[in-house]
Amino acid sequence: MNIGFVGVGRMGANMARRLQDRGYHVTTLFDTNRATVTALAQEIGAAACPTLGDVTAGADVIFTVVSDDAAMRQIFSDTDNLLISAEGKLFINCATVSPDVHVEVEQLADAAGAQALEACMASSITQAREGSLYLMCGGGEEAFRRAEPLLKELSSSLGFVGKSGEAAKVKALVNMVMNINTAGLAEGLGLGAALGLDLTMLREVFGQTGAASRVLQTDGEDMQNRDHATFFSAAHAAKDSGIALTLAERAGLNLPLARATKQQYERMIAAGLGDLDKSGIAELTFPDRHQAKR
Amino acid sequence: MNIGFVGVGRMGANMARRLQDRGYHVTTLFDTNRATVTALAQEIGAAACPTLGDVTAGADVIFTVVSDDAAMRQIFSDTDNLLISAEGKLFINCATVSPDVHVEVEQLADAAGAQALEACMASSITQAREGSLYLMCGGGEEAFRRAEPLLKELSSSLGFVGKSGEAAKVKALVNMVMNINTAGLAEGLGLGAALGLDLTMLREVFGQTGAASRVLQTDGEDMQNRDHATFFSAAHAAKDSGIALTLAERAGLNLPLARATKQQYERMIAAGLGDLDKSGIAELTFPDRHQAKR
Repeated sequence: MNIGFVGVGRMGANMARRLQDRGYHVTTLFDTNRATVTALAQEIGAAACPTLGDVTAGADVIFTVVSDDAAMRQIFSDTDNLLISAEGKLFINCATVSPDVHVEVEQLADAAGAQALEACMASSITQAREGSLYLMCGGGEEAFRRAEPLLKELSSSLGFVGKSGEAAKVKALVNMVMNINTAGLAEGLGLGAALGLDLTMLREVFGQTGAASRVLQTDGEDMQNRDHATFFSAAHAAKDSGIALTLAERAGLNLPLARATKQQYERMIAAGLGDLDKSGIAELTFPDRHQAKR
Repeated sequence: MNIGFVGVGRMGANMARRLQDRGYHVTTLFDTNRATVTALAQEIGAAACPTLGDVTAGADVIFTVVSDDAAMRQIFSDTDNLLISAEGKLFINCATVSPDVHVEVEQLADAAGAQALEACMASSITQAREGSLYLMCGGGEEAFRRAEPLLKELSSSLGFVGKSGEAAKVKALVNMVMNINTAGLAEGLGLGAALGLDLTMLREVFGQTGAASRVLQTDGEDMQNRDHATFFSAAHAAKDSGIALTLAERAGLNLPLARATKQQYERMIAAGLGDLDKSGIAELTFPDRHQAKR
């Protein structure tokens, strides 16, 4: 079985490396960034394809790890696209995009005699490299069974949520709540700093009380130390909260915390901080940092 | 040593029961609710005092567990107050109030030849009964040493944070972040319900990803099942977020998540839901519940 990858940023590249390590043949790669794709192709001995059609032609299973809804639609419906002569191929779509887009892509794949599976990842670069991703899948059960052996190599937790679009809904909610908790933590530590409290002590107290959270563990120290090396960017956080808010709007729900969180991440983008890690939101809430004042 | 209690709602009453169980003599009680204080006095064999002065007269150490800043100021400075003939007495103040109020009370106690210690509790009724409170103290170190044996009977974690007011700052931050996480969780589960997702599955996914938090464990299932029996009321949540926001305003910090959270809890109060547990905030975010629509 030959494997292709579309989108070989840090996530996609690490997934390709992991599969290669586990004895799979990663054969065809595509990325709009030519330098990135050329480097990875050399590293793992795969082809950096000039077109999307070439990726499909040279692989049986194609992972897509693109940035947003527009990119997902493009790779499956532009003049050059992945569904050219795609009969029998399996597409495993890992980007965090709107649930509707997964449904659209599945229909397009069906029409081309191919299969599409959404495999939403609730983890980051390190987990991709180590094969310990948290994966939630949606789509046809047959596509899931076919993808399962590969996905097991990539994940420590693998679940089948339901039909196409369902996993993306769960993923959007995970990231919406994670982003809220992150923005809230930044406010707590920022105010702690303004009050002159020992932030190491404060984080310890948070961790033992009702203020405890996963993001306290992953982002608390980074917020204190201004270490915003990017695992999950502020721009991605804004996008993902936006996906959830669109779903909420359609459902007629008012979610003021999610809205305030998206606005904070948009403030980061506007201030040129969108490429920082999501922990960089602390730059907005700590005194004497960027834009701390009203 | 005789012990007095002012404010014998569920927290105060459970602390008194716990100390009684551990062999201490709880002798004098006061509460503005006569029925409550009479019942507890009968139960534990203490006196339900008609005045605050009587509480002090009959005890060496007096715990105060009142509702807010105004109540704290009253019991230490009204015509009838705890500092009448209070020389040598120790006051242990457990209410979540503004840091400034603890400083004021300490000064008043000093002037009366008494000692005051703030002992902020980051836990609830059950922990009070079992002696497993999370306690953070602020004030003079001598007052802390004197209170320590008693406080150890009440707590599983006991810390000395610093001078008077410091523990209240930490407590305000803990509750501010806890309230944000709670409001955010209610939005995530509410939107999940609107999207027709299995909420038990969704909570499991939250628990294994970046959406995990202490409030997910304590309040998630209750939000799903509309079980809002009160451990920590929405009205208290609004008050505590308000304390933190006042500190933030003074420091010139903009905390949009904390503000949005306080507004949600105020919406609950306005809708007559202020006595529900903080988990009741889900009533605002789930479809087809109270005020779900904009």
